[in-house]
Amino acid sequence: MPGTMRTLKLTIAYDGTGFVGWQRQDNGVSIQQCVEEALAPFDPEAVPRVTVEGASRTDAGVHAAGQVASARVAFGHPVDAVRRALNIRLPTAIRVLTVEDAAPGFHARYDARGKRYRYRIRTAPVGWPLDRGFVWHVPRPCNVAAMREAARALVGCHDFASFQATGSSVVDTRRTVHRLEVVETADELHIEVEGDGFLRHMVRIITGSLVDVGLGTFPPEWMARVRDVRDRRQAGRTAPASGLILEQVRYDALEDGPLAGPPTRNSC
Amino acid sequence: MPGTMRTLKLTIAYDGTGFVGWQRQDNGVSIQQCVEEALAPFDPEAVPRVTVEGASRTDAGVHAAGQVASARVAFGHPVDAVRRALNIRLPTAIRVLTVEDAAPGFHARYDARGKRYRYRIRTAPVGWPLDRGFVWHVPRPCNVAAMREAARALVGCHDFASFQATGSSVVDTRRTVHRLEVVETADELHIEVEGDGFLRHMVRIITGSLVDVGLGTFPPEWMARVRDVRDRRQAGRTAPASGLILEQVRYDALEDGPLAGPPTRNSC
Repeated sequence: MPGTMRTLKLTIAYDGTGFVGWQRQDNGVSIQQCVEEALAPFDPEAVPRVTVEGASRTDAGVHAAGQVASARVAFGHPVDAVRRALNIRLPTAIRVLTVEDAAPGFHARYDARGKRYRYRIRTAPVGWPLDRGFVWHVPRPCNVAAMREAARALVGCHDFASFQATGSSVVDTRRTVHRLEVVETADELHIEVEGDGFLRHMVRIITGSLVDVGLGTFPPEWMARVRDVRDRRQAGRTAPASGLILEQVRYDALEDGPLAGPPTRNSC
Repeated sequence: MPGTMRTLKLTIAYDGTGFVGWQRQDNGVSIQQCVEEALAPFDPEAVPRVTVEGASRTDAGVHAAGQVASARVAFGHPVDAVRRALNIRLPTAIRVLTVEDAAPGFHARYDARGKRYRYRIRTAPVGWPLDRGFVWHVPRPCNVAAMREAARALVGCHDFASFQATGSSVVDTRRTVHRLEVVETADELHIEVEGDGFLRHMVRIITGSLVDVGLGTFPPEWMARVRDVRDRRQAGRTAPASGLILEQVRYDALEDGPLAGPPTRNSC
């Protein structure tokens, strides 16, 4: 029914290699641009052109298994037909996993209640060529117990100013990290982190700082000091983008409580 | 000690995307060429230049987790130093996992007693962008029971002429397949195949034929007829190179017997 607006909720996976990130930029191809251009033929008359809002503005080179995006559109095609057409038009590096009809006011970023990221680190002496674009190779053994001790300082509601990229304009740098775990697999360490929201480069700076602890550059108790000093220069290095993947965006309240209440992320 | 020859055994993993295959070709970059060029600086005076022989001449786009190669060299560097230097010189798509000193006459291809390959097929409706270079996307449900029944016709010592690329010059097309299994994972089917040796495209044609059975194009009993007719045109399609990975090369006899005896692959 032309003229009647509806809101679509898209769940999207992508290999971020070679893209300038989620958000439209002048200097290269973004995921957002690809999805918007794939949606455009459904409603070529739309003015202004349809905009797709992502829950997370992932950096250049960062991947997603479960990015969520919303779009207000005027066309009436069934959701499965929309998904199929988008996947035919999109490059194979981007796949739309599901398309759903959402409540009219749904906004993927403003309504998000939590996000889960995974950062993969390979610690074996030799890199693994078959997934090299998705892992940070740190070819030295890491002290996992020390990393876990350091990670505890970041769980909960804190001011994460020390873990924000220099130059960010965000004023309120308080966020709640619900879970921050160091998981060991055969040849990898995974940093799993879940929180109500993340500052620019926050997961990558946390990861770089945890690796600095794991390699013995800093003791575990250093992490709480870095947190309290609210100064990016005191934290560790920024881990490379390629090891990071956005796994899930949550819109429900967590069952055990921490996300209950209104979805204001900085309420801690 | 210059002048004293030794034989090195290299175990190599690679992402075959963008290479013309293992073997040197005029029309592009091969894995063999990269490894030979990475070895050359150890012995710049070598005449003729050092040659690296691979156990399997994998096709363009085929990957390896455990390719084995041998090289006769004159330099005396310790094996770990050789591995480190090779990995510094090689592109990150190719990693030398181990370097060992082998018996003087060791030849990676002639001495191989068996090889194991895996072919990955994604059957979910939507492709997965994060490993799309390593999986064949067949977006329809496959009848796994029918595929397993068909696979049984190919286990054992058979003439595999029907499963050899057209134009191959190999005369004796008998090979022994020790194991051919269809393994189900959450979103994928894996064809696992182990045998004493494989004809050109043999794993890919077997895989394509099994998928044709899985999709109902042919009944399971068709596979034995294709095997017996010794005619490539009767078999199914050739599955794409990118789903195939060489996992292991064996030089020992299998404990349960089938590979015992001299390593003549066509003795069945």
